[in-house]
Amino acid sequence: MSSKLFAIVAGAGTGTGRAVALRFAKTYPVVLMARRPESYHDTVSEITQAGGRAVGVSADVSDERSMGTAFDAIKKEFPGFKLAAAIYNVSSGYMIKPFLELKLDDLEGSLSGSAQGLFNFAQKTIPLLLDAVPESEYSPTLLVTGATSSIRGSAKFGTLAAGMFARRALTQSLAREFHPQGVHVAHSIIDGIIDVPRTRTYTTNGGVEDSKLNPESIADSYWHLHTQSRSAFTQELDLRPYVETF
Amino acid sequence: MSSKLFAIVAGAGTGTGRAVALRFAKTYPVVLMARRPESYHDTVSEITQAGGRAVGVSADVSDERSMGTAFDAIKKEFPGFKLAAAIYNVSSGYMIKPFLELKLDDLEGSLSGSAQGLFNFAQKTIPLLLDAVPESEYSPTLLVTGATSSIRGSAKFGTLAAGMFARRALTQSLAREFHPQGVHVAHSIIDGIIDVPRTRTYTTNGGVEDSKLNPESIADSYWHLHTQSRSAFTQELDLRPYVETF
Amino acid sequence: MSSKLFAIVAGAGTGTGRAVALRFAKTYPVVLMARRPESYHDTVSEITQAGGRAVGVSADVSDERSMGTAFDAIKKEFPGFKLAAAIYNVSSGYMIKPFLELKLDDLEGSLSGSAQGLFNFAQKTIPLLLDAVPESEYSPTLLVTGATSSIRGSAKFGTLAAGMFARRALTQSLAREFHPQGVHVAHSIIDGIIDVPRTRTYTTNGGVEDSKLNPESIADSYWHLHTQSRSAFTQELDLRPYVETF
Amino acid sequence: MSSKLFAIVAGAGTGTGRAVALRFAKTYPVVLMARRPESYHDTVSEITQAGGRAVGVSADVSDERSMGTAFDAIKKEFPGFKLAAAIYNVSSGYMIKPFLELKLDDLEGSLSGSAQGLFNFAQKTIPLLLDAVPESEYSPTLLVTGATSSIRGSAKFGTLAAGMFARRALTQSLAREFHPQGVHVAHSIIDGIIDVPRTRTYTTNGGVEDSKLNPESIADSYWHLHTQSRSAFTQELDLRPYVETF
Repeated sequence: MSSKLFAIVAGAGTGTGRAVALRFAKTYPVVLMARRPESYHDTVSEITQAGGRAVGVSADVSDERSMGTAFDAIKKEFPGFKLAAAIYNVSSGYMIKPFLELKLDDLEGSLSGSAQGLFNFAQKTIPLLLDAVPESEYSPTLLVTGATSSIRGSAKFGTLAAGMFARRALTQSLAREFHPQGVHVAHSIIDGIIDVPRTRTYTTNGGVEDSKLNPESIADSYWHLHTQSRSAFTQELDLRPYVETF
Repeated sequence: MSSKLFAIVAGAGTGTGRAVALRFAKTYPVVLMARRPESYHDTVSEITQAGGRAVGVSADVSDERSMGTAFDAIKKEFPGFKLAAAIYNVSSGYMIKPFLELKLDDLEGSLSGSAQGLFNFAQKTIPLLLDAVPESEYSPTLLVTGATSSIRGSAKFGTLAAGMFARRALTQSLAREFHPQGVHVAHSIIDGIIDVPRTRTYTTNGGVEDSKLNPESIADSYWHLHTQSRSAFTQELDLRPYVETF
Repeated sequence: MSSKLFAIVAGAGTGTGRAVALRFAKTYPVVLMARRPESYHDTVSEITQAGGRAVGVSADVSDERSMGTAFDAIKKEFPGFKLAAAIYNVSSGYMIKPFLELKLDDLEGSLSGSAQGLFNFAQKTIPLLLDAVPESEYSPTLLVTGATSSIRGSAKFGTLAAGMFARRALTQSLAREFHPQGVHVAHSIIDGIIDVPRTRTYTTNGGVEDSKLNPESIADSYWHLHTQSRSAFTQELDLRPYVETF
Repeated sequence: MSSKLFAIVAGAGTGTGRAVALRFAKTYPVVLMARRPESYHDTVSEITQAGGRAVGVSADVSDERSMGTAFDAIKKEFPGFKLAAAIYNVSSGYMIKPFLELKLDDLEGSLSGSAQGLFNFAQKTIPLLLDAVPESEYSPTLLVTGATSSIRGSAKFGTLAAGMFARRALTQSLAREFHPQGVHVAHSIIDGIIDVPRTRTYTTNGGVEDSKLNPESIADSYWHLHTQSRSAFTQELDLRPYVETF
């Protein structure tokens, strides 16, 4: 693998973001992007200590100016590197509430993380991914994390669903525009509770082993998506624990 | 039919909005809401001259304050009336452009008309519709206009799709929350060109008769949705010309 | 309305079939088709006594020869008449069982009612519907009854779903082929328990009023589908009680 | 990996079946099942010469008795072995024709390969897969090949779609029933032309390189599905060439 390729993970906290960063760091230097340094600090150390290369960058994906500054820093950090993979794993803030108790701000918070954030991230990364097409062993890849709320608007989850549906719409549109140019764009519907410190006390599916999504397992499928041949791209897949009802 | 019921159509310009207003005005007094008076002026006159009752209200659905003012005016205009039907037919502004030529503003314009606008409209109308449940002959109804872009993110239509997917997500969530409370919430996927003055010169589907959607035909299906018994609500249907490829 | 048009309802027992026959009989002479005369006998009488015209025909839709005989009889009964509407409402026989307890016969029983039956019915009715295009006030219509199992394969409902998915596939294909020739083909996803004598004792959705689908309400939507202008055909809609979870 | 595990590929001709057999043969002894020996003969030799173990079995998946005989032979061939993976890749015979030129036989041929065939295959393999759950490193897996016609009924493709929709329905139902018991059931929507000798002369997507699906690339994703942790099963994914319009 060329040493001149790197990857970016936006939304690199605990959970999926951390596991995907660790997985891609086995092959590429990785940029971990999050709003606050405490989100990526430990993972950056973990990768570095394991002999990989990782750089943390603080940015607010929903803010164009913040993203401009972040990508200037990234380009300085990786001069001459091409972008092999960009992963958008930002959580959208949302409230689970009866509709009439919601405020417009609740909707806008969800849209901001899901739609504006992905829009800005894609504006910055797609040109870099296109630029890597001739050199990357694997097709340069934009991977976007979705959820059940990406395909189903449930009662009380309206603002979350609005954001996640919009995120999926953007991802599909990008796939249809950029697949023919050699950039792979895929969306994963994560259906279930992810097994992270914050959810450790949740009892799901009777609490049996593997009843929550293991972030490392998610990362394995993200890596598989990245390495797919351009003759057989997946645009969308679902991921859920074996005991999850669907 | 009780004389104390009324209907509101947001996005009441030419086309679907006008036709729906005319259709519902056969039974209810109708409020026509649009950003600019010239959008609803002629239809208000048309309804009035035909012996119906129509009131135009200027408002920007994406602006909470503007909606507050508009609904204060509506309540003054119809004291003691209950809301039988609210139709959300606002077009989202959007640009058809390669993704890398789009600006964040283009996305926000689409979201604003599709997501924030519907959110504000539903915040104002759902309480009025709930209030009408015991008295309305037909289940009080919130009808939302969608499009092909509500279910498909095409290349260059990313910002439109983001808004329309979000609009559909909100509509689904509202249906799941408010159907059990007696308010019917339905989404129509309009797939094709609507036959309005602006599209008269478009040649679609070989230009054969009825190859564009007749707004009056759309309005007939909206009226049918409104009159469905609560024992058999439709949440979503599609509408397209017989010659439209799908 | 021309006196030279008629309608056919296959699967004309109690419930949807009976209600649809009664609804269409307000406008057209109606053929009620079922395997056994006791299924349609009472409805034929009911229509006749109300001053309408109804004819019962016994046939097994899954058997080509039986359908041949039935349509010969129908043509003799209605010489010179054109077919305005054909409704396919046949239940597929099915077993709700763990997969490993099912027999191949269980699958074939479901396919036979859902796929072969619709195939034979469409082979017989589409030519008659095409022939009616120039004369019918409303677009000649083929309406097909679906269910939740048409779009979702649940555990233990595999054979039912196999048949209902196949039925929906055929219906979609027919719509895409015959809409441009003026024949309207629509599929209704009936999601919930239908309120018929057999289900009267079921307690659904807490047993509140209208928690089951009223067959007359289903028939109203079927009639609406039939009368849609060809400028705005619906290909698919869902129908469910207001309190049904979905 | 235990030497006591094996895999079965039904529909093991050229193309996907052959490539999947070769891929799984790197890890497991493989049974290749096809109606005629000439379909699997060369691939069996190829695997054997490469030092793997492969056995060809002739069977008609749509015929219960033939499947009984085949599985008796398989159990004799692999005494004490557990089934790690079963792949259903049988093509359904079908005709692309205007609906009114089709015969009932055309429909039944499609259903037979897609629905009855999968039903029989699952009846035979699910008990073996369940039996392997405690011992297999990877979750025992049933993989089913689908196509665009699994989710879209196109004009003239009605009989194909009927079969493929039914196949998808069965697969979904099996996933919902057997995931909680530890057997992974996944469906792949292959969208595009597969690059096999028979299609070599087809010019697709302008004839650019990789414009057809490479069977080895499909096999890579099948292997990935097989190796997914039970904490993150994929039930469905799509696979298409980067230049394929969708």
